[in-house]
Amino acid sequence: MKPIGPIPPGFEAIDGELAIGGYKASALVEQAVRTPLFVYSQERIAARISHLRAAMPAAIRIHYAVKANPYLPLLEFMRGQVDGFDIASSGELSLVQTAGIDPAIVSFAGPGKRDEELEAAVVAGVTLNCESEGEGRRIISCAERMGVTPRVAVRVNPDFELRGSGMKMGGGAKPFGVDADRVPDLARQLIDAGVKWRGFHIFTGSQALSSKAIIEAQANVLELAGRLASELGHAIPKLNMGGGFGIPYFDGDAAIELAQIGEALHARLGDLPDELQNTELCLELGRYLVGEAGVYLTRIVDRKQSHDATFLVTDGGLHHQLAASGNFGTVVRRNYPVAIATRFGAEPEEEVNVVGCLCTPLDRLADNAMMPKAEVGDLVAVFCAGAYGATASPAAFLGHGAAAELLV
Amino acid sequence: MKPIGPIPPGFEAIDGELAIGGYKASALVEQAVRTPLFVYSQERIAARISHLRAAMPAAIRIHYAVKANPYLPLLEFMRGQVDGFDIASSGELSLVQTAGIDPAIVSFAGPGKRDEELEAAVVAGVTLNCESEGEGRRIISCAERMGVTPRVAVRVNPDFELRGSGMKMGGGAKPFGVDADRVPDLARQLIDAGVKWRGFHIFTGSQALSSKAIIEAQANVLELAGRLASELGHAIPKLNMGGGFGIPYFDGDAAIELAQIGEALHARLGDLPDELQNTELCLELGRYLVGEAGVYLTRIVDRKQSHDATFLVTDGGLHHQLAASGNFGTVVRRNYPVAIATRFGAEPEEEVNVVGCLCTPLDRLADNAMMPKAEVGDLVAVFCAGAYGATASPAAFLGHGAAAELLV
Repeated sequence: MKPIGPIPPGFEAIDGELAIGGYKASALVEQAVRTPLFVYSQERIAARISHLRAAMPAAIRIHYAVKANPYLPLLEFMRGQVDGFDIASSGELSLVQTAGIDPAIVSFAGPGKRDEELEAAVVAGVTLNCESEGEGRRIISCAERMGVTPRVAVRVNPDFELRGSGMKMGGGAKPFGVDADRVPDLARQLIDAGVKWRGFHIFTGSQALSSKAIIEAQANVLELAGRLASELGHAIPKLNMGGGFGIPYFDGDAAIELAQIGEALHARLGDLPDELQNTELCLELGRYLVGEAGVYLTRIVDRKQSHDATFLVTDGGLHHQLAASGNFGTVVRRNYPVAIATRFGAEPEEEVNVVGCLCTPLDRLADNAMMPKAEVGDLVAVFCAGAYGATASPAAFLGHGAAAELLV
Repeated sequence: MKPIGPIPPGFEAIDGELAIGGYKASALVEQAVRTPLFVYSQERIAARISHLRAAMPAAIRIHYAVKANPYLPLLEFMRGQVDGFDIASSGELSLVQTAGIDPAIVSFAGPGKRDEELEAAVVAGVTLNCESEGEGRRIISCAERMGVTPRVAVRVNPDFELRGSGMKMGGGAKPFGVDADRVPDLARQLIDAGVKWRGFHIFTGSQALSSKAIIEAQANVLELAGRLASELGHAIPKLNMGGGFGIPYFDGDAAIELAQIGEALHARLGDLPDELQNTELCLELGRYLVGEAGVYLTRIVDRKQSHDATFLVTDGGLHHQLAASGNFGTVVRRNYPVAIATRFGAEPEEEVNVVGCLCTPLDRLADNAMMPKAEVGDLVAVFCAGAYGATASPAAFLGHGAAAELLV
């Protein structure tokens, strides 16, 4: 038997069915007309953001990292929830534009921006987080070609990392940003070339569950930004401090302590170096804002026995839920939080394997999991599906097509 | 330094550039108008199939597993090259129909076929590889609803595996097929219900590089099919023996020995049990037919230094080449065969990291690889990109969009 990951708190049953945003799972599927279906709850996102704001110092701006979930209705909803947006491609630029988001609150990071992407971003007026000296030159020549003054920040590759993060974005040689010791020179060249100077972007890692590690990384980020500002001799209009706030996916994971992080940050803000006194500080969060607000619903198509194992075969799978299948940069597969949505809260009765419909042994949603007894037609819920789900999975694999999405 | 995987034999340079199907890499990119670009060589696919046919006994039919690469022009080309097609979804059914492929030579396997998929397949006249007793009942009731006699084979979950295969599809509890000991009963029920009986599908694994293991698995498959046929007491019109022929991706991998496999199979065919004397035997191959015929071309957008490491940042990445990035069910990341396409055959001069344009540390195409010195604008080639590339990757991730594809 393998444990199932922790179901995010607050999900309840109506008539024995999982409810999302006040609707029963089966009603949501009816509304979407098909399975598999991603459902995202506005209420849960808003509650998360309001808890976050309550815990953080008032001066801290909250940005949304579009890559976590670029579903258009969700972006439109986020427009009224956060203070800024961070994009990673001209595709995401088009999306935020379609969602009616003001380009002045959008910044664009990414190590491989093409000339066409720089042009689109410069013309739109979004802030470019410059990732290298070469990109700096391309930004300037592109802005000259377009006859526009570009908004530019420098992305810093810090010498430290966010300890215990799922993905390290700093500490050592990295393709992201410019090594800290070369940042003042590059920033000076950009300012001298006449860009609208926006400051620094320092990202240290993602999906950290240690509040202590997040507190330490934030302290290091502020210290580094102050030092770089002092060497540069220019004010820093804005500092994107990165994010890294993780969410629990697996058995034994615990939520981060927002209050502790907020208090430590509050104390730091009272003690900022002169160079950062007038700097707008922001946190860039994706997964933390939307991850636990999403549920993936898939229908059981077959229930079968092979030797001593029971398989629940669903119409979903890794083509929508690559990370949950354990195949996206994972070494040891563990179970995400998973439940039988149409028997939510019922006692676990049997050990089953929940698999997807793809003809590959990689397509697993839960291994050796204790579940209530489910039949063909029941819905399976995979939780923590609001971030890095639909777009972070190979939707075209084996020709089953994309999942439906719904914001409720 | 980490070794690079072996470049498939036969690729040559024209004017110092990698040539594919007689065209220089830069000319192909011009024709496609953009990068990244998958190029598939008809010539290489045809040569592979003709070597395969020469090595195998004449009676063996060759089927193409569409999931390996469902690019429509490639499917249309394959129509004239192979004897049958295997699909895994109704999406792939639409594709083979669009490609003008006769449904009578198509079979459909997959553990989670929905009722709509069964209906589409029954109406089209493709053979359904039945994966469970429950699916058997659904096929029959669906055929009654549609007023059509369905063509049905039974997919067998064998008690043995293809040793050393990248993915095991047999040996123990599996979501695929029906445990061998229950197959005769299910087959009899289907025959009694009046289906057009098509035989067995026995798939034991994929991506095996040991010729001995393939020979052993084929012997076991024939033995099992004979035993099941004898228990069933019915002739077996067709036996899909699976595939599993691997291709070399990594340093140290060697190609399988077709001649040995063909000789062993030839000997087996001379010694078939009575029940299989009139059985049509086929091999279902995907990766082996098209994998080495494909090259992924991506352009270097930035060349940068971080600490003591050099990064070549490309406009491609894991959104098109998930497996090459080492994130698709891989435990230890190793380098695929990779080269600087615009300096093909030049001496390696420096150790570099080739990364994609995605803003995630997972997006790597080659780590610590010795390469000729490359600059912004140069093209990088990732080989073995003909199978499980474009559609087995999260194309929507971070909004960069799909790659172009070209059959030459």
